[in-house]
Amino acid sequence: MYRSAVAARLLRGVAAIHNGSGSLSSLHRSRRFAHSLPFATVDAEELSGDRPAEVQNLVQGKWGGSSSWNTIVDPLNGEPFIRVAEVDEKGIKPFVESLSKCPKHGLHNPFKSPERYLLYGNISSKVGHMLSLPKVSDFFARLIQRVSPKSYQQALAEVQVTQKFFENFSGDQVRFLARSFGVPGNHLGQQSNGFRWPYGPVAIITPFNFPLEIPVLQLMGALYMGNKPLLKVDSKVSIVMEQMMRLLHYCGLPEEDVDFINSDGKTMNKILMEANPRMTLFTGSSRVAEKLAVDLNGRVKLEDAGFDWKILGPDVCEADYVAWVCDQDAYACSGQKCSAQSILFMHENWAATPLLSKLKELAERRKLEDLTVGPVLTVTTEAMLDHVNKLLNIPGAKLLFGGKALENHSIPSIYGAVKPTAVYVPLEEILKAGNYELVTKEVFGPFQVVTEYKESQLSMVLEALERMHAHLTAAVVSNDVLFLQARLLHI
Amino acid sequence: MYRSAVAARLLRGVAAIHNGSGSLSSLHRSRRFAHSLPFATVDAEELSGDRPAEVQNLVQGKWGGSSSWNTIVDPLNGEPFIRVAEVDEKGIKPFVESLSKCPKHGLHNPFKSPERYLLYGNISSKVGHMLSLPKVSDFFARLIQRVSPKSYQQALAEVQVTQKFFENFSGDQVRFLARSFGVPGNHLGQQSNGFRWPYGPVAIITPFNFPLEIPVLQLMGALYMGNKPLLKVDSKVSIVMEQMMRLLHYCGLPEEDVDFINSDGKTMNKILMEANPRMTLFTGSSRVAEKLAVDLNGRVKLEDAGFDWKILGPDVCEADYVAWVCDQDAYACSGQKCSAQSILFMHENWAATPLLSKLKELAERRKLEDLTVGPVLTVTTEAMLDHVNKLLNIPGAKLLFGGKALENHSIPSIYGAVKPTAVYVPLEEILKAGNYELVTKEVFGPFQVVTEYKESQLSMVLEALERMHAHLTAAVVSNDVLFLQARLLHI
Amino acid sequence: MYRSAVAARLLRGVAAIHNGSGSLSSLHRSRRFAHSLPFATVDAEELSGDRPAEVQNLVQGKWGGSSSWNTIVDPLNGEPFIRVAEVDEKGIKPFVESLSKCPKHGLHNPFKSPERYLLYGNISSKVGHMLSLPKVSDFFARLIQRVSPKSYQQALAEVQVTQKFFENFSGDQVRFLARSFGVPGNHLGQQSNGFRWPYGPVAIITPFNFPLEIPVLQLMGALYMGNKPLLKVDSKVSIVMEQMMRLLHYCGLPEEDVDFINSDGKTMNKILMEANPRMTLFTGSSRVAEKLAVDLNGRVKLEDAGFDWKILGPDVCEADYVAWVCDQDAYACSGQKCSAQSILFMHENWAATPLLSKLKELAERRKLEDLTVGPVLTVTTEAMLDHVNKLLNIPGAKLLFGGKALENHSIPSIYGAVKPTAVYVPLEEILKAGNYELVTKEVFGPFQVVTEYKESQLSMVLEALERMHAHLTAAVVSNDVLFLQARLLHI
Amino acid sequence: MYRSAVAARLLRGVAAIHNGSGSLSSLHRSRRFAHSLPFATVDAEELSGDRPAEVQNLVQGKWGGSSSWNTIVDPLNGEPFIRVAEVDEKGIKPFVESLSKCPKHGLHNPFKSPERYLLYGNISSKVGHMLSLPKVSDFFARLIQRVSPKSYQQALAEVQVTQKFFENFSGDQVRFLARSFGVPGNHLGQQSNGFRWPYGPVAIITPFNFPLEIPVLQLMGALYMGNKPLLKVDSKVSIVMEQMMRLLHYCGLPEEDVDFINSDGKTMNKILMEANPRMTLFTGSSRVAEKLAVDLNGRVKLEDAGFDWKILGPDVCEADYVAWVCDQDAYACSGQKCSAQSILFMHENWAATPLLSKLKELAERRKLEDLTVGPVLTVTTEAMLDHVNKLLNIPGAKLLFGGKALENHSIPSIYGAVKPTAVYVPLEEILKAGNYELVTKEVFGPFQVVTEYKESQLSMVLEALERMHAHLTAAVVSNDVLFLQARLLHI
Repeated sequence: MYRSAVAARLLRGVAAIHNGSGSLSSLHRSRRFAHSLPFATVDAEELSGDRPAEVQNLVQGKWGGSSSWNTIVDPLNGEPFIRVAEVDEKGIKPFVESLSKCPKHGLHNPFKSPERYLLYGNISSKVGHMLSLPKVSDFFARLIQRVSPKSYQQALAEVQVTQKFFENFSGDQVRFLARSFGVPGNHLGQQSNGFRWPYGPVAIITPFNFPLEIPVLQLMGALYMGNKPLLKVDSKVSIVMEQMMRLLHYCGLPEEDVDFINSDGKTMNKILMEANPRMTLFTGSSRVAEKLAVDLNGRVKLEDAGFDWKILGPDVCEADYVAWVCDQDAYACSGQKCSAQSILFMHENWAATPLLSKLKELAERRKLEDLTVGPVLTVTTEAMLDHVNKLLNIPGAKLLFGGKALENHSIPSIYGAVKPTAVYVPLEEILKAGNYELVTKEVFGPFQVVTEYKESQLSMVLEALERMHAHLTAAVVSNDVLFLQARLLHI
Repeated sequence: MYRSAVAARLLRGVAAIHNGSGSLSSLHRSRRFAHSLPFATVDAEELSGDRPAEVQNLVQGKWGGSSSWNTIVDPLNGEPFIRVAEVDEKGIKPFVESLSKCPKHGLHNPFKSPERYLLYGNISSKVGHMLSLPKVSDFFARLIQRVSPKSYQQALAEVQVTQKFFENFSGDQVRFLARSFGVPGNHLGQQSNGFRWPYGPVAIITPFNFPLEIPVLQLMGALYMGNKPLLKVDSKVSIVMEQMMRLLHYCGLPEEDVDFINSDGKTMNKILMEANPRMTLFTGSSRVAEKLAVDLNGRVKLEDAGFDWKILGPDVCEADYVAWVCDQDAYACSGQKCSAQSILFMHENWAATPLLSKLKELAERRKLEDLTVGPVLTVTTEAMLDHVNKLLNIPGAKLLFGGKALENHSIPSIYGAVKPTAVYVPLEEILKAGNYELVTKEVFGPFQVVTEYKESQLSMVLEALERMHAHLTAAVVSNDVLFLQARLLHI
Repeated sequence: MYRSAVAARLLRGVAAIHNGSGSLSSLHRSRRFAHSLPFATVDAEELSGDRPAEVQNLVQGKWGGSSSWNTIVDPLNGEPFIRVAEVDEKGIKPFVESLSKCPKHGLHNPFKSPERYLLYGNISSKVGHMLSLPKVSDFFARLIQRVSPKSYQQALAEVQVTQKFFENFSGDQVRFLARSFGVPGNHLGQQSNGFRWPYGPVAIITPFNFPLEIPVLQLMGALYMGNKPLLKVDSKVSIVMEQMMRLLHYCGLPEEDVDFINSDGKTMNKILMEANPRMTLFTGSSRVAEKLAVDLNGRVKLEDAGFDWKILGPDVCEADYVAWVCDQDAYACSGQKCSAQSILFMHENWAATPLLSKLKELAERRKLEDLTVGPVLTVTTEAMLDHVNKLLNIPGAKLLFGGKALENHSIPSIYGAVKPTAVYVPLEEILKAGNYELVTKEVFGPFQVVTEYKESQLSMVLEALERMHAHLTAAVVSNDVLFLQARLLHI
Repeated sequence: MYRSAVAARLLRGVAAIHNGSGSLSSLHRSRRFAHSLPFATVDAEELSGDRPAEVQNLVQGKWGGSSSWNTIVDPLNGEPFIRVAEVDEKGIKPFVESLSKCPKHGLHNPFKSPERYLLYGNISSKVGHMLSLPKVSDFFARLIQRVSPKSYQQALAEVQVTQKFFENFSGDQVRFLARSFGVPGNHLGQQSNGFRWPYGPVAIITPFNFPLEIPVLQLMGALYMGNKPLLKVDSKVSIVMEQMMRLLHYCGLPEEDVDFINSDGKTMNKILMEANPRMTLFTGSSRVAEKLAVDLNGRVKLEDAGFDWKILGPDVCEADYVAWVCDQDAYACSGQKCSAQSILFMHENWAATPLLSKLKELAERRKLEDLTVGPVLTVTTEAMLDHVNKLLNIPGAKLLFGGKALENHSIPSIYGAVKPTAVYVPLEEILKAGNYELVTKEVFGPFQVVTEYKESQLSMVLEALERMHAHLTAAVVSNDVLFLQARLLHI
């Protein structure tokens, strides 16, 4: 239902530097920012190797550090700029206890503490209002940019979607969500009722690419219906959600309602096995997801991504607008949206238009300075260029644009840095057994495949789509109603 | 929500001949048809001046005649072929008593007799099945044709819509309709609940043009939710619903749940004033509706009709199909549907196509033999031709086809009998103050106005539409999404 | 659905004093309050005979006065403290034109200007936030108290319900309200769709007793779905809504979306006849409602009140709490809620409890100083005491408490001023033909009837309820599920 | 949502006897029953060792045998009475091909072949009607009894629930299920739509205990929304569903819409791995479920059972009725419902009532002759008695009734045969670490644990419930609203 993320790569430990102290300086910093934003303990602009920020854990209503610290490097220059207090196996006890204390009927339900539905409506109104204030939305947008590089516009959009979400659950809307139903029974005094019931203790694990939107939407949904969540966000970006937790408390969230943890995957797995939450919601790589499904006996819900496609139909219109949309869908957030366009099927009628040249122009306008293109957090430059080269070996394939590393940057080599890239591959080749897997391999970066189809080849396009396993988003660009209904679905 | 009727002209007493006897022969007839359809007391084919049928009243679970009888003439030949037992003011007491006995909380509700929701699910399953049997659907289709002349296909369609309605409320669907909801309250033990509650005693008054579909849908909807209805159908066609009542009883309807009455309007008004039902649903002419609204202090829901339009957009396509649809919409049931097309706005691009000649061809194929055109029950031939002539006096107006009385028929002169007719009137003339009222006068017969608009005249079309008071149906024929959105609504 | 009002007595012209000027001073005042509340043009505390406030009209986006002024007197001391610019028949043209300009498809709909759904979500978020600020809620609560005297708690509750309403329609909730549906059709390319469509031009007329809540909820509901409303609030209290209109503009409401008018009933009627809005929503007295229903050909929705009852079941529990609820339901807002408790049926088991003495104690604690009892705006002292005396003439009737005029006050004699009153009438007497009408006469003031029933008399209670025409609210106080289901509904 | 089953024990190969022929005799039998039920190929009464029935497979629209046959023994006397054509690994190709042919957009969807929604409405009406005929419902009830022994009343109830399900999806209800929604977008021409979309190829695997209801409800739900299912029912009972498939075809189900397979678990697993359905719905044992979850990468939905409880509150009432319900919930279908009551917590107030003696009386009235108690298909007599004895070793435990093998029967020893049994265990003992696992072990047979709690021990009851992992059903018997809300949930 909601935007979900692709490749959390939960277990990656990037340049971790252990460090046992830190609580004093963190206290110091808390005070320092108190004058500007009453909830914040960091300054989004000042994070740097010289003034590293610290991210804490929250359990049983108390913020705290840990015995080991993980250091995150600035994706734009490699400086160690955030220290994350990571819980290790020795520190899991309070988290296990906290989850276990929550009963199966949750913190509230339609029969228990109904006033908490109103409380959450109030919290949502307040947070929605706070996020509507420019200095607060700017704070979060900048903080997102620092750890998950994307353009200011994209980062701000993430904050605004989050703001709208809170507004949507203002007032009585949380209790309306808990609406039950009744149906008359077979005889006097009998009635069938359906209630919206919590799981009780739950866990939420979220990835790096939308550091605010994904955890907030999943966390609040769980809280609204009476669950007690343990939240873990990818440590590379968890500073964003740590600050949001402080805003939530400021707006009235009871401090014991959520636990917030930083840890490596192995430790988190141990907590889940011991605390045994009644549901775990995991957004991220399918490799981790499969392991979780087995370990948790299926008590897990997975949000994943896919290889997403777009078809341009035979009716050419508004080429400028179509080019703009295609550029955004493929390269915004450097292609690190789970819904990013991975392949474009273009009807031959578009060949005569300036669409491709416009696409190229838009892609080349993207630059590191404003983060309209930026570091790729889960694929290296080498791996992406290698993929491009393999595709170019396919007969008839050609590079449309990009295909080179970014220049003049200080992005650390553990991250990827390439120009927005498109490779043309002939449709007949895509369908060949040897090529199909290669062409449809998902690359979580600024990369797409483009192909063209003739009127007579529509069935080949459909076959290509049919063979894809998952596609979170898909689009058909055509004003011709009959094209979609009679042709796409009925050939 | 459902198809509704236009011009019931409830109070018309057509060729009424009083006759005080009749119960014996009715009993006789009951027996005679028992072998063919177990519920029926008449034979749809055999109704005639020689063998007139009788229609009874039902009150407090008992069928019966009355002291006065209204004779209905065959719309195709003027023979008196149905005798309706009409209740007069001296006979209203049992009807008033029966309604008054029903409490405001109805015959059932979510707290009372919930097993009756299941009973009605069962009745619906059974009636749905009965109507799916060819000999039963044929019986009702033919009976409809005898009293409300329309083609067999149109009459059968009415039966089938009714059948689907019963199927839709089979099984548990009636109790699902009574679904309630609950929302958590402000504190422990508090909850807001919404229940679907009956009115209790209600009245339903329906017109001549859909003798089965309109009363069945309105009656069953009322019964499902626990109301006790008094049903009155236009006497000209009430034989259809009288037979349906017998089918309902055969399928398990408790005999005291509905009262069925034949009477003139004045008597019905007296019953409503005395029994004071908590809601009256009236389908029919706006003149009667307005009187009822005053008499019943607003405790009335009205279903009326209107002057319905269709616009053909600039994108010409499938002219044959469009012609077929326009012909059906204007002339099926001899234009006596409340949703019949009254005016057609045609973009100039259609002028070059054979649309108008095809329309003419289709209209002229209609004939009395198969009732694809037939008697008009509420407007005389003279009145319709007079209206045509007035329109033809408008500068630029011309007769496209029709405009003459039917020939070689025995339709009694109290009814109308004209050929399917279309009159072209220039758009500029339609908008003139003197003409607008005339052009948009609703004629409940096989008649439509056609006009044409140029690309530059779209705003005049919109002005014409804007000035119409009511339109139950409206259509825009265009595959061009932008035509509707950007042009029709935003000029 | 929402709380609605009983007795608007729209046409009452109280002490009208005409005055042709006023725009200058109004401008002056605007400036004066700009420092405290940026939208307000009056100060709720300072309204007085010395410093009367002015209420303007809004049409086609412009605020303005009128050629005649109606002066409102302070209900607590009779001083002329508000001057209302009332439009007379010569001034109606701009209002008629403004309504007529709005097309039948409204200012927006699912196909037109969908961005306006978001605009209204934003407006709602902002107004919700403004009303959550203590100085704003206090401003409206005090302003309500000045014109429709009720306790501060009751007035503040009205503001808070209004605030919640805005919060409920924050963010995307307005467009969710415009959710459409589609059902697959019979064959390829066919689909049935249902859209939520506006009426276009509409009128809203609201009463005196909830000067903020009723007009806001009705106005915003109309605006959300794309209608253009003309709003008229009872002039005695229209200052509250006039200030709310200014807050709405401050929060982004386009100034041409709503027209706001002050006038007498005759003028309003003339506007409705000329502008012919497609729907009028009227909350108020049934006398006016019936006239409107006729004049507007049924294009009117009515919200009225009724004679509301409460039954105490046989299981006595929590007598203190029950007494508190009964006192609030009967006497809060001096009984001028449309849902005010008018009669209390008490099971004999309660006779042995201190319920009645507690009721008396609570009623006698109410005092004019804090407006827990106050002026009655539509019934005079004399009329209420006369009604009490008539009831006391019924055999066995007795005064439980109250029954006297308030003392030591300066409430003007056009308003009523009596102590909270309860009269006991024996159940057998209530049912007698001569008494029933008298006992169940609605008195829109601090007055209720109390009676008692024995176990064996439950059927008499039910008969009494059955004979009442309308009851907006009703309550059964019992934890015994079987009492309600098996006994109340099935005797 | 619907009743689901517990312990399919899919892979059990009971007394399998291979036999390569059979198609001729099956053809012969088809003819023989044609005169009585037009769809049936077996006679429920005549199945026996002498006249064994045959169960076929259906793939790509054709019924057929297989190279190997599995013989099912009569659970009441051990005679081999059904021969099931089981597909082995060599025969899977047509099933894999058939599933693979179905595209991801299914056999129909809101844009493709919408007439199929109506087709399924029609099929449902017809099957619902057929099942309402006594000879058809009797046929299925008896057939169920032969393979999954339960009382006639219980077997007939299964048929009737199935009938109601079909009635619920009669008429237009299937297309109503495919209702879509739309929400206005951000700007002109934009709209968010939600459609109900099929998975395309799917698999359904169902257990032995409800041989008709579970597969029909799951199969039809999948078909309605456009999926193409491969259905596999536990071979011990698949004859019931094989006959139902023939009834479905008779009522209009296209023969290529469903494939029906008999096989062992290993073969089915291979088909799933090769055909790769987009979703598999599995009802049965958690052991198999966990393997499937891993093999199918989580593309599986599981329906399982649990250890179900009932609490009797402090307010004693209607002991006879409560005893009857407890007896039904624990012992109907010989305790082989997934929702069967496994433990009863009785408030001390019930100790003084005849509840336990009535429970005993009702249990002892159950007898093999009418199958009110019968064979247990997944637990042997020895295993059940062994469990009873282990419980009786707990201090304070005692046998309330049962605890012995059935006598004078010919149930084969591979099945279980014990009297309805109840063991009392003291509450304190249940909570002890050593005992808890034993007491809450699910036994899929006519067995329950009973315990008692004092007013002061309610928290111990809650702790016991909290520690249970899953409970499909749970009941609190009390008319005291406060007991549930204030005490059960808030201690």
